[in-house]
Amino acid sequence: MRFEDRDGGSPVLIVGSVALDTVKTPLGRVEDALGGAAVYSSVAASYFAPVMVVGVVGEDFPKEHLEFLASRGIDTAGIHTSPGKTFRWAGSYEFDLNQAHTIFTELNVFAQFRPKIPQAYRSTRFVFLANIDPELQLEVLDQVRKPKLVACDTMNFWIENKREALIEVLKRVDVAFMNDAEARQFVGTTSLVRAASVIRGFGPKTIIIKKGEHGALMCRDGICFAAPSYPLEEVVDPTGAGDSFAGGFIGYLAHTGDTSERNIRKAIIYGSTMASYNVEGFSLDRLRRLTPRDISSRYNEFKEIVFFEPM
Amino acid sequence: MRFEDRDGGSPVLIVGSVALDTVKTPLGRVEDALGGAAVYSSVAASYFAPVMVVGVVGEDFPKEHLEFLASRGIDTAGIHTSPGKTFRWAGSYEFDLNQAHTIFTELNVFAQFRPKIPQAYRSTRFVFLANIDPELQLEVLDQVRKPKLVACDTMNFWIENKREALIEVLKRVDVAFMNDAEARQFVGTTSLVRAASVIRGFGPKTIIIKKGEHGALMCRDGICFAAPSYPLEEVVDPTGAGDSFAGGFIGYLAHTGDTSERNIRKAIIYGSTMASYNVEGFSLDRLRRLTPRDISSRYNEFKEIVFFEPM
Repeated sequence: MRFEDRDGGSPVLIVGSVALDTVKTPLGRVEDALGGAAVYSSVAASYFAPVMVVGVVGEDFPKEHLEFLASRGIDTAGIHTSPGKTFRWAGSYEFDLNQAHTIFTELNVFAQFRPKIPQAYRSTRFVFLANIDPELQLEVLDQVRKPKLVACDTMNFWIENKREALIEVLKRVDVAFMNDAEARQFVGTTSLVRAASVIRGFGPKTIIIKKGEHGALMCRDGICFAAPSYPLEEVVDPTGAGDSFAGGFIGYLAHTGDTSERNIRKAIIYGSTMASYNVEGFSLDRLRRLTPRDISSRYNEFKEIVFFEPM
Repeated sequence: MRFEDRDGGSPVLIVGSVALDTVKTPLGRVEDALGGAAVYSSVAASYFAPVMVVGVVGEDFPKEHLEFLASRGIDTAGIHTSPGKTFRWAGSYEFDLNQAHTIFTELNVFAQFRPKIPQAYRSTRFVFLANIDPELQLEVLDQVRKPKLVACDTMNFWIENKREALIEVLKRVDVAFMNDAEARQFVGTTSLVRAASVIRGFGPKTIIIKKGEHGALMCRDGICFAAPSYPLEEVVDPTGAGDSFAGGFIGYLAHTGDTSERNIRKAIIYGSTMASYNVEGFSLDRLRRLTPRDISSRYNEFKEIVFFEPM
C-alpha cells in the first residue's frame, strides 16, 4: 500500500549499497540485519512511487530480504547476485547518537560492483544515486537517458579520496545531499549557508544539508528552507536516517512529478517523516510496518511543530 | 524607537552581568567592548518594551555605555557602581563559531554582586534572570512581587557547581532557557526532547533549548515548537547571541502582555531575529543601529524560511 493509497506517478531508479548490518546502540543490538543505502532509500521511496533498485549481493544474502523488497513493490531485478559474500558493515552508537563508530567494513562483493542499469530502467525520470564511489555514480549517469531529476548522496571518504570525480557528479545532478560535516569538509568553511552556495556553484540547483537531530537545510536560487527533525524522545537506531530521508524525498517528487521549489519543500518534510520513523526501530523494522496514515499524520504534525503566526 | 514605533506594554526587569569583553573571532577582534548578558538582553528587549536593568559595574566603566543604554530607553538606575574594576571576559572563537574558548574571566566587582532590586522595580510583571549564580537569582525572586512571567538562563558552571540552587530557581520560573549542551548535561541524556521533559518536571511550564546555528526548540504541555536560526553566510561574533535571543523573547511578551503558547512561538521568532542581527557585528555594534523595520522584515523572512504547504 502506498501513500494516498494510489499507484501512479513516475517510478524511481535507485542505485547503491545493499548490506547486512551489525549495529549496537544504547538500546540494543542487531546482527546481519538488512541494511544499505539503496535498501533504506528504496523502502522509503516505495511508500510514494514504484521503485527499481540496482545493487549487488553475495550468495549468502537471505532470500526473505528480496521477498520483503518485492512485497513493497520494489523491482529487484537489478540486484545482481555475485559469487561471494554480501557487503557487511558493523557499527556502534554511544551516548551521542549523531556519531556512528565503524567497527568494521567488509566490502566483499561490493568491492567489484559496477552498476549495470537494465535497459528497461534507463528512461526512468527520477534517479537517486545513493552513497557509492562517485566514479560509479558517473557510470550510472552515462547509462540513463534524460531523467527529469537526479539526486545524489555521498560521504566523507569520497570527499577526501575522490574529490574530482565527486565534482563531476555534482555537475550532472539536480539535487545534492550532504550531511553538515560533509558540506563543511567539502568546502572548508564552518558556515553551512556558504557551503551550500559553493556546492551549488559546482552545478546542482538544489543542495540539501542533512543535520540529523537538527533537521535539514535546503538552499537554491538564493533562498533557504529550514526543516526541523521530528522531536523524538528516543532514537532506537539512527542507521539509515539519511537514506530514508532521501528516499522519501525523491519518492514524493516522483509520485507528484512536480520538481518546483514548493514541492521540493513538501518532499523534504516527507523525507523527514520517513527518517523519523526509520530511527524508531533497528534496521527496517519500523519502516516495514508503516502505513500511509502514519505518514500523513506525521506530516501534519510537522506543520504544527513549525507553526507561528504572522506579525 | 521601539518595535511598531510605539511605547506601551509592560516593562521588563533584567538582572545579570554587565561586562567589558575582549573577543577574537576569525573576522576580527575587539578589546574591552560593551558586553554582559544583562546588556545584550536589555538592548534586545528595549526594541519591544521599556527595560529596567540591575547589575554592577566598576569605576572604570565608560560613561558612554550607560548613555547608550539610556538612549535605548533602558532605565540604568539599577546599575550600581562599586569601587574597583568592571567584570571582564576575554574569549576567542576559532573555526567552529559554536564554541567559545575562554581566555580569562576577571570577576572584579561582579564577585561581590548582590542584586538589590529598587522598590520601583519590584512589581515589574516580566522578569528575566540572565545567567548569574542561581543563589542570586533566588534573591531576586525573593524581592519581586507576583510577576506575570519569569524567565531564567544559566550556564554549565552552575549546573556543575550549584545544581541544588538551580533546581530551586527552576521551581519558581515560568520559562527556562538552556543551550543544548547544558540541557544534556543537566539531565544526563542525549535526547533534547527527553531533557526538556525532565527539566519541565522541575517546574518551568516552558523550556527553550537554544541550539545556536540550529535554532531553538521550545517544549511545553507535550508540544514542541522548532524555530530555525536565520541562515547567515557569515557570523562576525557569536557573543551575546543567546542573551539577545532571550531579550527579544521577553521584550516581545512584555510588549504584548500575552503569555499564551501562540504568542510564545512569536516571541521565539522575535528572539531569533534579534540574535541573528546581533551576531552580524562585534559587541552591540549591529543592535545599536537596528530599526523596527529591520525586525519586521526578518520576522517575515523567518515565515518564508519554514514555509511548506499542507498535504
